[in-house]
Amino acid sequence: MHIISEFIRGGVREIYSMMLGLEVICKEDVDDTAPIPTVISGVCGTVSVTGKMNGTIYMSMSEKMAKDATCRIMGSDPASVSDEELSDVIGELTNMVTGNLKSKMTDQGYNCTLSIPNVMIGKDVKIEATQSSIKVCSIFSVPDSQETIQVFVFARLEG
Amino acid sequence: MHIISEFIRGGVREIYSMMLGLEVICKEDVDDTAPIPTVISGVCGTVSVTGKMNGTIYMSMSEKMAKDATCRIMGSDPASVSDEELSDVIGELTNMVTGNLKSKMTDQGYNCTLSIPNVMIGKDVKIEATQSSIKVCSIFSVPDSQETIQVFVFARLEG
Repeated sequence: MHIISEFIRGGVREIYSMMLGLEVICKEDVDDTAPIPTVISGVCGTVSVTGKMNGTIYMSMSEKMAKDATCRIMGSDPASVSDEELSDVIGELTNMVTGNLKSKMTDQGYNCTLSIPNVMIGKDVKIEATQSSIKVCSIFSVPDSQETIQVFVFARLEG
Repeated sequence: MHIISEFIRGGVREIYSMMLGLEVICKEDVDDTAPIPTVISGVCGTVSVTGKMNGTIYMSMSEKMAKDATCRIMGSDPASVSDEELSDVIGELTNMVTGNLKSKMTDQGYNCTLSIPNVMIGKDVKIEATQSSIKVCSIFSVPDSQETIQVFVFARLEG
């Protein structure tokens, strides 16, 4: 398992617990290879990093899960969540997960800087990251629901 | 029209002419406001920037146009273009367009650093960029075809 996946797995658990009061469980799969092509559906936060680690983090979940996360943070009613609120929350969660990774990678000598987050909403979106030598994924399940959260990191390290 | 749009319009014309031998024409629309939400279909290259300009550039076109661009650069047969070749070419074109913008924005005092490109392929993908104060778009038409190329910049400037 790549060190980036170890950091992502620790960071996501910590941030979901702290921010959403939600214990997510990482599928204990040592194979962290992202499928090629990677296909995402639902709501996906993206943050890029530049520097000695250069690449993009995609955090993907169903629209239902994204709404649930938004309600947990904003205290709002699921029926009244706007796309903008949802994007604010998923963008910010992706930013926190990436910030956590940045901090741990900086400790390893891979200093980097974060872009502001974007959020995309779609179905069967194929992601090609031909310039990334590192293509890893971590899948988290949410107990008491059928939901999963997928985090993909496509990056390269400069040494 | 935002200065970023002026730079994008000049840069895209120059790069498509130089790299693809293709004269693209920007719709002479002074309103460069990106639609909210922005919805893209087809093949889309993405590159983010960090620094005094921070954000993401999306360069979107139909799969047919992306294949044509790939053939022009690789000299390959349209029938045999793989997703990987196509992603290499569209990623690199997006990288060049963003590099051109970076260089012109640096001259204006907005230094920034580029992420490596990714490419996404999908239909009706909604992009939400709630943290970007600048949301602009430039649309280029390709003479002798019904094709268009759309470039969206979602960013904020510091300083």
